[in-house]
Amino acid sequence: MTLEAIRYRSGSLQILNQLLLPHKTAYDEIRSVQDAYEAIKSMKVRGAPAIAIVGCLSLAVELRAGAGGDDPVTFIRESLCHLTSARPTAVNMGRAARELMEFAENESMEKNSEQLRESVIAWIEDMLERDVNDNKKIGNYGAQHILSGVPRDSVTILTHCNTGSLATAGYGTALGVVRSLHALSRLKRVYCTETRPYNQGSRLTAYEAVAEGIPATLITDSMAALTMREMDITAVVVGADRVVANGDTANKVGTYQLAIAAKHHGIPFYVAAPSTSCDLSLESGRDIVIEVRPPEELTSINGIPIAAPGIEVWNPAFDVTPHQLITGGIITELGVFLPSELQAALTGRLTAL
Amino acid sequence: MTLEAIRYRSGSLQILNQLLLPHKTAYDEIRSVQDAYEAIKSMKVRGAPAIAIVGCLSLAVELRAGAGGDDPVTFIRESLCHLTSARPTAVNMGRAARELMEFAENESMEKNSEQLRESVIAWIEDMLERDVNDNKKIGNYGAQHILSGVPRDSVTILTHCNTGSLATAGYGTALGVVRSLHALSRLKRVYCTETRPYNQGSRLTAYEAVAEGIPATLITDSMAALTMREMDITAVVVGADRVVANGDTANKVGTYQLAIAAKHHGIPFYVAAPSTSCDLSLESGRDIVIEVRPPEELTSINGIPIAAPGIEVWNPAFDVTPHQLITGGIITELGVFLPSELQAALTGRLTAL
Repeated sequence: MTLEAIRYRSGSLQILNQLLLPHKTAYDEIRSVQDAYEAIKSMKVRGAPAIAIVGCLSLAVELRAGAGGDDPVTFIRESLCHLTSARPTAVNMGRAARELMEFAENESMEKNSEQLRESVIAWIEDMLERDVNDNKKIGNYGAQHILSGVPRDSVTILTHCNTGSLATAGYGTALGVVRSLHALSRLKRVYCTETRPYNQGSRLTAYEAVAEGIPATLITDSMAALTMREMDITAVVVGADRVVANGDTANKVGTYQLAIAAKHHGIPFYVAAPSTSCDLSLESGRDIVIEVRPPEELTSINGIPIAAPGIEVWNPAFDVTPHQLITGGIITELGVFLPSELQAALTGRLTAL
Repeated sequence: MTLEAIRYRSGSLQILNQLLLPHKTAYDEIRSVQDAYEAIKSMKVRGAPAIAIVGCLSLAVELRAGAGGDDPVTFIRESLCHLTSARPTAVNMGRAARELMEFAENESMEKNSEQLRESVIAWIEDMLERDVNDNKKIGNYGAQHILSGVPRDSVTILTHCNTGSLATAGYGTALGVVRSLHALSRLKRVYCTETRPYNQGSRLTAYEAVAEGIPATLITDSMAALTMREMDITAVVVGADRVVANGDTANKVGTYQLAIAAKHHGIPFYVAAPSTSCDLSLESGRDIVIEVRPPEELTSINGIPIAAPGIEVWNPAFDVTPHQLITGGIITELGVFLPSELQAALTGRLTAL
C-alpha cells in the first residue's frame, strides 16, 4: 500500500491526523479554510510543503462549493492571509499564497466569478500534482544515481528525520529515494535515526516504513557512525530545509554530524530537495541563521519530564552541512548535481543526471 | 556541595535511589546483603564500579553486626555469590568477589572469626577509599593535561553518558576530570549529551551538574558536531567500559561518533578510566563483542510508547573507538598516556603524566 497523508478529490479533502501517530491512523475531514487553519496550527499536519498543500487544497474545497460568491478574489485573499498566519515560519505557505494571489488577480481581469473559481481550483490541483511528480522524479533520479555505483547489488540506506509522504504533498524527498529503491526491488534496508528531540524518525519515518512494508531499522542518532561501519551502508540520503548557492545545506540538526561520519567511512552523502528548496540568493551557509527552539523539547516527552530539573539546554533546530561534505550530490527534480554544479543547473545553464 | 551517591560509615550504608532521579533525591538504607541485592537488581544503583562497591559495603555492614557467627567464610562466600547473581553482566562485582574471597580464605588460615570479620571489613573499606582516590587522581591528571594546552583560559568540555559520582564509588572518571577543572575555577562550561537510549546524560550527568553548581548545558547526541563547531570545545572527555592493549576503547554507544567528529574539528579526544578497566588480555577492539540490548529501550520511555509499532530496532549498548581517534590520550590514575604507551605504562615499564 502507499501511505496517503493527504486524500483529495474534487470538493473533498481528508488529512492523516499526525498528532495521533504513530499509535492511531485516523483521517480528519477538512471542509473549510478554517478547518485547515486549525489542523495546521495544532500540527495535525506538519512539514512545510505539506502545510502549503493542505492550506491551498482547503481553499479549493471551499471554492468548489461556491465560496466567495460574486467576489472570489477578496475571499481568496482573506483565506490565504488567514492560512499563512497559522504557522508564520513555514515559508512554503507564504510563497504559495503570494504566487496564487498574483495568479488570481491576473485571472480576475478577464474572467467572471465562476470561471475564476475554476481556474484557481485548477492552479491548486496542479500544485498538488506537480509537487508529487517532482518528488517522484527526485526519487527516481536519486535511486538511479545510487545504483549506478552498485550495478547488481541491493543497497542499504541511512536517512535522518522525516522527509516522506507525511512531510510533503506525497512520496517524499529523501524518503522518496528510499521508496524508489524499494519499488525497484533494490533496497535491502533503510536505517532511520530517531531524530531527537522531536523524534520524527521514530514516530513518522518508522510509521511510513511499517505502513508500506519497507524493510527498516530504527537506531538512535548516536548509533549512526557504528551503523555505517557495521551495516555496509551504501549511501546516506537526507532532505533539506534550504540549499544555498554554493551547495551548503541547512537541514534538521544532526545532519552535519552524519555527513562527517559518512565522509570518515567513505560513504556518499546525498541531499534530496526540490528546486523550490534551493535559495540562490544566499551565497553560503554562513548566511543562514540557526533557529534555537524551546528547552522543553529536550527535557520532556509527551509532557513527562525526562531530564534533571534546572539543567540548561541548547536546542538548535537545524544545522548547516558544508558543501564539501555533500559527496554524493544534490538530488533535485531536474537531476543529481554536485554542489558546484547546482547554481548552473537551476538557472538552466546545465542539465545532468 | 559534593554529590554523594554512596553514604558509608562503619556499620551503616545508604545509597541514593537512582530510580527516583532526576525528580526526587532520596537515600535508601542498606542494612543487609539482601537489601543490596535488591537495590542492584532493581537498578536503584547502577554503573559497574558502583554496583561492586555497594555490594561489598553491604557485606561489611552485616559483618560489623557479627554476621557469619563462627563460620564467616561460608557467609562471605554465599553473600558474594548472591550479590554477583543480581546483575551477572556487571564484571566489576564478579572481579571484586573473586579477589575478596581469595583474601578471606587466606586470612581464615591464621585468624579467628572475629579477626577475620575485621580484616575483611578493612579490605572492603580500603576498596571504597582506593576507588575514590583513583578517580580523584584521574580527575587531576586529566585536568592538568587539558590545561597544559591552554595556559590561561577557561576550558569548555564535551562529555557523554554518566561517568560521575553516580556510576562510581565517587567523584567519577570523565566527569571527575570535569569536577577537577571546575574545582580549579578553569571550567567555563561542560556540554553533556543526553545519551540515548537510556538518557544517562539528561537524567544523571545533568543531575550531578545541577547539584554541584557545575555550569552545564544539555544537548541531544545529534548536536555534538554542531556544538564542537559553534561552542569552542577545548576537549572531548568520555569514560570507558573496557580499554584493550592497543588502546581501542569500548564505551557507551555514540562514543565512536563523537571521536570522529572531534577528529574532524581538530579537538583532542580523551578516554578517562582506572587501570582496572584496562584489559591487556585483548589485543585490539576487534576482539570485543558488541552487546545488543532490547528494542524497548528505544521504542518506549517510562513505559510510554514513542515509536511506530512494528518497527525493527537495532540497539547496541556500546561501540568501539579505534585508538587512532583517541588523540588526547587515555587518562588513568597513573597518568595520561597515548594509546601506544598504555601497555608499557600499565605493566610498569613507563611512567608519564
